[in-house]
Formats: sequence, structure tokens, C-alpha cells
Amino acid sequence: VTRVHVWGASGYAAAEAIRLLSRHPVVELGALESRSHAGEPVGDHFAQLRNVPRCFDGPGSVLSSLAPGDVVVTAGNAGESAQLIPPALARGARAIDLSADYRLDPAAAYGLPEWNRAHIADAALVANPGCYPTAAALSLLPLASLGRVRTIVIDAKSGVSGAGRTPRVDTLFAEVSGDVRPYGLDGHRHQPEIEHTLQLAGIDASVVFTPHVVPIVRGMLVDAYAVFGQAVDAERVRDVFDRAYEGSPFVRVLGAGRVPSVPSVVGTNEAELYVDVRDEVVRVVCAIDNLGKGAAGQAVQNLNVMLGLAEVTGLDARAVLS
Amino acid sequence: VTRVHVWGASGYAAAEAIRLLSRHPVVELGALESRSHAGEPVGDHFAQLRNVPRCFDGPGSVLSSLAPGDVVVTAGNAGESAQLIPPALARGARAIDLSADYRLDPAAAYGLPEWNRAHIADAALVANPGCYPTAAALSLLPLASLGRVRTIVIDAKSGVSGAGRTPRVDTLFAEVSGDVRPYGLDGHRHQPEIEHTLQLAGIDASVVFTPHVVPIVRGMLVDAYAVFGQAVDAERVRDVFDRAYEGSPFVRVLGAGRVPSVPSVVGTNEAELYVDVRDEVVRVVCAIDNLGKGAAGQAVQNLNVMLGLAEVTGLDARAVLS
Amino acid sequence: VTRVHVWGASGYAAAEAIRLLSRHPVVELGALESRSHAGEPVGDHFAQLRNVPRCFDGPGSVLSSLAPGDVVVTAGNAGESAQLIPPALARGARAIDLSADYRLDPAAAYGLPEWNRAHIADAALVANPGCYPTAAALSLLPLASLGRVRTIVIDAKSGVSGAGRTPRVDTLFAEVSGDVRPYGLDGHRHQPEIEHTLQLAGIDASVVFTPHVVPIVRGMLVDAYAVFGQAVDAERVRDVFDRAYEGSPFVRVLGAGRVPSVPSVVGTNEAELYVDVRDEVVRVVCAIDNLGKGAAGQAVQNLNVMLGLAEVTGLDARAVLS
Amino acid sequence: VTRVHVWGASGYAAAEAIRLLSRHPVVELGALESRSHAGEPVGDHFAQLRNVPRCFDGPGSVLSSLAPGDVVVTAGNAGESAQLIPPALARGARAIDLSADYRLDPAAAYGLPEWNRAHIADAALVANPGCYPTAAALSLLPLASLGRVRTIVIDAKSGVSGAGRTPRVDTLFAEVSGDVRPYGLDGHRHQPEIEHTLQLAGIDASVVFTPHVVPIVRGMLVDAYAVFGQAVDAERVRDVFDRAYEGSPFVRVLGAGRVPSVPSVVGTNEAELYVDVRDEVVRVVCAIDNLGKGAAGQAVQNLNVMLGLAEVTGLDARAVLS
Repeated sequence: VTRVHVWGASGYAAAEAIRLLSRHPVVELGALESRSHAGEPVGDHFAQLRNVPRCFDGPGSVLSSLAPGDVVVTAGNAGESAQLIPPALARGARAIDLSADYRLDPAAAYGLPEWNRAHIADAALVANPGCYPTAAALSLLPLASLGRVRTIVIDAKSGVSGAGRTPRVDTLFAEVSGDVRPYGLDGHRHQPEIEHTLQLAGIDASVVFTPHVVPIVRGMLVDAYAVFGQAVDAERVRDVFDRAYEGSPFVRVLGAGRVPSVPSVVGTNEAELYVDVRDEVVRVVCAIDNLGKGAAGQAVQNLNVMLGLAEVTGLDARAVLS
Repeated sequence: VTRVHVWGASGYAAAEAIRLLSRHPVVELGALESRSHAGEPVGDHFAQLRNVPRCFDGPGSVLSSLAPGDVVVTAGNAGESAQLIPPALARGARAIDLSADYRLDPAAAYGLPEWNRAHIADAALVANPGCYPTAAALSLLPLASLGRVRTIVIDAKSGVSGAGRTPRVDTLFAEVSGDVRPYGLDGHRHQPEIEHTLQLAGIDASVVFTPHVVPIVRGMLVDAYAVFGQAVDAERVRDVFDRAYEGSPFVRVLGAGRVPSVPSVVGTNEAELYVDVRDEVVRVVCAIDNLGKGAAGQAVQNLNVMLGLAEVTGLDARAVLS
Repeated sequence: VTRVHVWGASGYAAAEAIRLLSRHPVVELGALESRSHAGEPVGDHFAQLRNVPRCFDGPGSVLSSLAPGDVVVTAGNAGESAQLIPPALARGARAIDLSADYRLDPAAAYGLPEWNRAHIADAALVANPGCYPTAAALSLLPLASLGRVRTIVIDAKSGVSGAGRTPRVDTLFAEVSGDVRPYGLDGHRHQPEIEHTLQLAGIDASVVFTPHVVPIVRGMLVDAYAVFGQAVDAERVRDVFDRAYEGSPFVRVLGAGRVPSVPSVVGTNEAELYVDVRDEVVRVVCAIDNLGKGAAGQAVQNLNVMLGLAEVTGLDARAVLS
Repeated sequence: VTRVHVWGASGYAAAEAIRLLSRHPVVELGALESRSHAGEPVGDHFAQLRNVPRCFDGPGSVLSSLAPGDVVVTAGNAGESAQLIPPALARGARAIDLSADYRLDPAAAYGLPEWNRAHIADAALVANPGCYPTAAALSLLPLASLGRVRTIVIDAKSGVSGAGRTPRVDTLFAEVSGDVRPYGLDGHRHQPEIEHTLQLAGIDASVVFTPHVVPIVRGMLVDAYAVFGQAVDAERVRDVFDRAYEGSPFVRVLGAGRVPSVPSVVGTNEAELYVDVRDEVVRVVCAIDNLGKGAAGQAVQNLNVMLGLAEVTGLDARAVLS
């Protein structure tokens, strides 16, 4: 039994990781380190985890309980992972980092299994992608073989849990309700990760990225528009998507007449993709759970790949009927 | 392996039953009979069930495929269960009825396992309680031993999925959003069931019941106020609740400083109870999922009792972090 | 033209006061003092006030610009009004205090015009009632003439704007959405005000008060259950309500078959009341806007009474169709 | 005093028209004709109009009460306006049609005052634009002078009131909540109107239009991306927007650091526009109220233009603080 520790355990993604790991059939929950909630019952902070009979552990608990072969899931603020991960690796553990610290770092495997399984399997350190980059990459990487993309427009709509649990005026119920709010118009922190991932795949287009907060808690929908310099063949596009994801259990490329549904993926590690072509534009619509495939679900998928387990292990829950 | 059929499979409770049964480790999904959706993929009607590889079956499919020992979960409109259940029982099947048809009928076991396990275990026909009566009974039945209750006020707040999936103006998003709407002030169809259940336990008080629709999809909170004729001892009240539910895995009687949380029970079969005393009034607050403990979850719990399984079989999912 | 200043102008109630006063046909907006937002455009903090061409004024601006005959609306935190109001009164201004500081103080007129018009008209200082006490008083004060009330249960459901705009985890969208949350079970700060008001009217019953936060931004529904010691005559109850509010333009006592609607009062100063009788229990359901009749709307109504204007002046907006 | 009649008065846009017209300082409400609600109080169907002391009028009431100089606002289903409008015009009335029947018809003035004031002023028949075309036109028409646009992507997010009040499964609260749902991917009925309007302005680009339903009742946000064939000068773009709307009281072109806010325009006739440039792409984000500037508000603005009144007459309400 592999022990999996969670570090920086007070946010939404960490709580989702605890939920998934506490029901994972193979691994065992290790330390749940939280600076702010040390010693307090997990269920006092996350009502949905009331039946997890654990308290948060205090500072230093992950490192002190770590054994070779353990895995650490790190979910701290920017810059914090760099404090924990090197000593953890030095003790023979492996790490999956939910923060952005290592996403552009060649020393880490980029944790998008659909496009990087082999590296993840052997990696000591996996950089779990951001939620927007996950949806963007699943939507756009199949296009690399179709010719030169001139411009890419990514118009994304995210649930507010993506903004974290630290209280702010702009994430209060009274501010989010009734609004559809564009943000980061001057540049979102995920844009370099999106562009980096596209470039690795050979897509070197100008990217216009507009994220929005919508009044839902979880889940996101990303509409990606790839403007080619010439008309694109719809069947060929369809074909590259089908082939790209035929061995990927979590990605559903939808058939005609079906559109991605955010509620169909919330609480799961699934992604739904719709693709069509309008003259020179390939339009791809992708639904994922920002805390699932966009964070903790993908972390568990990466964990499964790292441990040589079936990717769906512990990730087979149905979405909860609204 | 016991086969479980679902009849009247086009509503929210039936869909939740399909979700739970499709992941149940012991039973196997039988026919999914729906008059309106026959032949269509389940996932076309319920996005959250897109990964259930099944179509709805047509009229007559349950009866024609029924074998002795099978179980039928019936979820039709008022009066419809009486068409299906007698012939199903005649063929040696057992039935769990989600409708109100048999709830006051002594020929059926009342399917509230916390108070009626023994009868359910042996029953051929179990009448699954309504959502409001479930929360009311869990909140009030422990009080029977405390003396005469003069008046009971039940102020309930329900998610709108309780109103069903047949389109109506008053359940449109644009009508429910922003509202907290009392209804059924002239008499709600659940009131006789509530009174009947209380009387069986020996509580013969006047009941004032005010249900409300609140802008949530699932889950309900029920505040019950039992007005006694004299002051009540808080410790004794606490004690009767603890004893009433000590062997019940789904009921959490909360300790001091904790209050019931709807998100903590949505997607589960759990109930959370808070109890305190104000002079002559015992106040009990109960959170359940109207589609879980208030419908499909309780049906699966009843199924487990009927099959001699542990009550939590197939019902151990964590609530999904909002 | 009377000038009206707003002090402590950074919360929801103050912003609503600014909205109403900026369109009031008789008075003129004076200083808008805010410690935290001094110098910044009002519309940068409240999107709905983007077309109010004003900036917040800095500390001391109200007192320094105050002239005899001006009115100050104070909306600070607990204890802050006592700093500003005495010097303001000393300079010949009148004050309407939205905080709880003066609500139990005999030196202030209790600002519930339906029950206290005469005192308000002449008062130098009006204590604007809390939102829960407003709804409770409108619901229960008419009962004073009907005999001894034994127990009163007040089960209230409030929009989250009532919790203020200071960021907290429990008012985040991700925490409020999907929940119906009881709070203050150990005693809410409004309970003494409710009891005090009832006692002034001669109603000396035990009060059980359960407030809840529901996932709406504005508006509240209060269900009040008055348990009498004997059966109550429904027609007589109806009659006392009709008479109590026949000269009150903002209170609608609903006829048979109609129930109070939160969306019908949001954005207005209106209150809707439903009354019926169940044996020994009088049930009253009241809908108000917690920021309207429960705060800023009532403050403007009090202002109108103080200035000898028609009560509806500047308060005749229709609710906005949701 | 001009009398204004409303025909087809049972939907959300008609109700908003009634709200606005009932408070309009110059015109007077005429017949409120509704086939389905004839004889019933307006407030029984629209809680927010409870204080409008009117009943719906029956079939034929508009035509029978029409006098020369009256105005009719028609809000029926597709094809119905053609039944009423010709006889109304024949009796000397003028008409503002909220349906799509006349929007591509040269016999009607296209009712977008910011771009067509002169024609509207003299028109007997004004075709009120759709909500998406209104936002798209406000966002894109200023670009006509900037050179050839190759491709336009319009990614729109609308409140669900835009789907109307006729009950459907997909507009139920339980279906809309938690979702961000693309629709009309095969072609939305507003796309021809959008393309027609752009072509009239000389913009002949390929348009990809993706509308979404988001879980808000009112308001919409439209992100328009105009892909030019070459880099575009940001200052020049800013300048054409400032000039385009300098005499338009309802359009706010936002300065640096501000983004459009849906709650800032809900309940008003306002539009907020954000513009920037990313290489070859001009990005415009527009917020309007789909029932305001996208329907009934714009109808009243057209009415004001037709009557020679100031455009803001009866349209000066502030947005209601959420």
C-alpha cells in the first residue's frame, strides 16, 4: 500500500484530493498538513468531508512521516512547493504538484496523461497542469497535424472554486451571483502555460485568452476557436480527435447532436469535447471539472500512472445528478 | 446476483436510483422502463449518466424480464404503482415503491430503516417514505418517550428537484432563482404521511407544516419545533437522540457547536441532526438529500436491508465538495 | 432641499441608501464618507452605481460639511455610530442609524413607521430596525390584542447580503451556493431586539428564533408561528391585520390563495404578509427586502416621515422582474 | 398623452415593458392583451408586478381600443406580429415589434437607436433588435472603418430569461443551475440578423457565433473577437469607439482597468463596452440586460425617439444592487 500525503491541505483542490484519496482502493491517506487548520477536524472546515475521521496535521508532519516510495500531493500557494518538494524527493518520495511552480520546468513531467503518459510513469516529480491549460490542451493539441493555425481565441468560463477559498470581496456570493465576469484581460497567469504547451506540440499561433467567472461552484467550459489560414476539412478534424483520445478513458469526443455538459463531468475526472468546423475556424468546446480533471482528479490519474495502476482506479464515480 | 429493475425511469429520483444501482457492488441493473423515453440513451436525458451505457426500455419490459427474487424499484406518478406492483409480486419479485401509493397502506412495510428494520427485512413490498416525512420522522420520533407534545411546527426548505422534472412555470430557473417560496399552505400531500408516522409512534400533536422551495437543486433542511406543555430537560433529550441512532450508520447526531449542512449530505444517504431545547420547545434541525435519504438513497438502503446486506453497501460515497 | 449624508458608506445597506437617495426627488446627496474607500469612485466598488458620478469622501467629511437641518444616515460597524451621532446632533442635524447601537435606547425613536410614525416625525435620532426584527414586528405586533401568546417560533430565511460585505469564508459563493444554513442557534444578535419590540406591544411570549442563510443575494422570508393557549378565530385574526396596515402604503396583507413572494419586494420598500390559523397557532409569513424595508428603504421611509413628506417619496420603484 | 398598448403580454420581455411603461412619465398604459391570461391580474403571473393594478385584457382588445397616434408594442411568438401589425398601422397607430418578424424587412426601421436614430424617429414600424444582435452590433459596428475583418468570433453568455417563459425541461432550475451550456451550434436564429446588420455596415466577415446559457436570470455578456488580416492600432480602435457613442446616453465605453459588469446593467437600458487589441485581434466585451437594452428597454428607447422625447425618459433607474 502506497501512502499519499497532502500538503497545503486547506483549499478546495486539496479537499477534493482528500475526498478522492480517502476512497481510493489502493493507496492510503498519509499526513494532511495544513498550517492554518492544524489539529482541527477536516470535517469542521469542509462539510462534505464530515465523515472523514481525520484532523489536519501540523507543520512539518509530511516531511517527518515520509518514507521512500510515498507520494506527496502539494497544493500550496505560489512558491511554496519549492520549499517542500526538494527535501521530499531527497527522501525517496515522489511528488505531484498542484501549484504552478514547476509547470514550465523541464525537471518535472507535465502531468497531462493523455499527451504525456510515458514521462509521467517514470517521473519523480509531476507538475499537475492548471485547469484552463488542461481544457485548452485537450481541445487544441489534436490540431497540430492540420496545418498552420494563425490565431487562437480561447473563451473560458469557470466556476468560482477556481479562485480559491481565501475570502475576497469578488468571490462573495453577493458579488458572483447574477454576474458573468471577464477577468485577467491584461494577462492571466495561465496564458504562458497554455502557450508553452501549444508550442511544445508545434502550434505557434497568437493566443487571445479571455477567462470568465460564472456563478457555478465547480466545473468549467472552454470554447476554443482555431483560425486557420484556409478552409479546413471537417471529417479530417473529427478523425484526428477520435484517434487522439481513443485510448483515453476520461475523454469523450461527442458525436453529432451532443454538446459538452458541465454537470456531466463535475465530481469526475472526465472531459467532454465537441468539435466542428466553420470555414477557416475549428471550434472546440470542452467541459471539465476545474477541481477534477483540472486539479485533484488529474492528480489522482497521474498518481495511478506513476504507480502503474489502471488510470481509472478510484476515479470511477458517476457525476452526481444535479 | 440480484437483478434490480427500475420502472418509471424518467424522473430525478429514478435517475438517482440508476446512478446508485449502476455502481452497487452486489446487485445488477435490470430493465429501465420508461414510457416517454423508450429506446433512447439514458445519457441523452440525464447528462450525469452519460457514461451509463444503457438505453431506456419500453413499456412492459420490467414485467416481461422479471424473475423470482428480482427487485423492482417503482417511481411512477400517483396511482401508477398499483398497476405494476401486484403482478410483479405475483411473479415472485419484491418491490420498493418510491411513490406515495402505499405509504399509508398496512400491506406495505414503511421503508424507514432506522425505525422499521425488522419489517423491511422480510417485506415483499416496501413503501419508501417521502422526503419531508423522512426528515420529520428522524427529527421527531425520538421525542415520543418525553411526554405529551402539544403542538409541532415543521418549517421545511427543499431543493427544487423535489418538484419533479415535468416542466412548469414555477420550477423554471427564472422563477426559482432569488426566491424562497412557501407553498402548500392549504395542505401539502406529505402532511397526512407525517401525521400518520407520528401517531404510530404515539405522538398525537397538532402539526403545522410549512414547506418552502429554495433555490438549490438537491437537499433539504427541516426545522422541527416540538412545543411541550412544560419545560424539557436538555440532557435527557440529547440522550434519547443518541440512543435512537447509535446503530444507524447514516444518521449523525451532531455535537455542540455544529449545525446540519445540506452540502454535507447531498449525493449521500446521510442525515444530520441538531437538537436543542428552549424552555418548552425542543428544536430539531435535520439535513438530508431529498433525492438521497429522501428517495433513491433510502430505496437502496431498504434494498440492502431486504437482501441482508450491510446497510451502507453501495452507499459509501462522500459528498462532492461544492 | 435637505442634504442627506451617508456615513460608513462601504457596505451593502449604505450602497442601497446611496442608490435610493441619488434618485430621491426632494433631498440631495451630501457627503459619502468611507474610511476604506476615500477618494475612489463609488462605481468602482459597486458596479450597480457606476452611473453615480461621485467618489467616496474621506474621514471627517460628514461632520465638516454638516449644516443644521441636514440628515445623516449612519451605517457603520457596531459601536461606531456613537462616535458620530452625538456631535452631528449637536450641530443641529438629525440622524437615522442603520446600526444596532440605538435600537434598545429610549433616547432614539424606533424607526418602524407602521407602528411608530408619530415619534419618528419629531425625532432627532431614529434607530432603524434590523431586518429580522422588522419582519417579525410586522408579522406579530397585530396579534397583541388577541390574547395571551404562549410561544413564538420565528423561522427566518435571509439573503446573504445581510451578512455584509467584509469577506469571510462562509459568505463565499462556493460556500453559500447549494446550502440552506441555520446559524446563531445559540442566540442571534437580533433576538433581544425582537423580544424588546414584542414586549413594548404587550406580547410577552417565549421566542424561539432560527435564522438561516439561503442562496439568494437580497430579500428574506420570515415564517412566524404564534402558539396561543386556545383556538383562535381566523376571521378575527384577518381583521386585526387588515386594520393594522390599512394606512400603510408599503404593507400588503395578501388575500386568499396568494403567498408572499421575495422577488416581488426586492428592490422596493414593500412587505407582503400572509396570515392563517391552524388550531391554536397563528401562522404569519412575511417577505421583505433585507436591504429595502429591512434597511435602506426603511431609512428613506423614516427620512420621509421626518421631513413631512409622503412616505412613498422616492420609494415607488417597481421590483425588477427576475 | 400617448397611449401604449402591449400585445402578447405573457412573456418576460412584455412584463418588463409593462414595468417600464407603468412608470413612464409621459405615456400611458393602454391595453395589455394576452390570450392565455385574459382577465387575470397581472400580479398573479408576475410577482414583481403585484402593485400594478391591472388585469390582462382579452383577445382583440388592442385593436378595438386603438386610436390614431397610439403605439403598440408587440411581443408575440414568431409569425404572430404579422397578424396584428398591419391592421394596427392601418388605423393610424405606430408599432414596435419585439419579435423577429420584421428585423430583416426593409419596410421596418431597425430599432437600434445608436446607429439608426433618424429612421426610427419617423418610422411607423420599428423592428426591435434581438438581444444578441444588439450586443454584437454595439460591439462590432464601430470597426467598419478600420479595414477588412477576416473572421469574427462571437462568444455569448445569456441569462435564461432569454429562453422565454414557456416551460421546458432545459430551462428548469434543476437543469440550468450549475451548468454553462452552449446551444444552437448548428445555427442560432439570431445569426442571420447579426450577419445582416454587419453587412449593412460594410463588414463582410465570416461569423462564428456560439451562444451559451448561464445560470443567471437576466443580463448577458458578449465577447466579440474580430480577426483582422494585419495588426491593428489600439489607439485608433479606442478612438472610433469613443466617437461612435459620444452622443449615446446608454452606452458606456469603459476606460482602462474597468471591465463590463452584467449586474451594473440589469434592470437598465445601459450597455457597457470594453475594447482592446491583441495583435490582429480586436476584442470587444459587451454587457447588456437581455430584457433591457436587449428587448423592453430598447423598445422604450425607440418609443422615446419616435415621440421626440429625450432617449432617457422613463429609463433612468439605477441598477439594483445585487
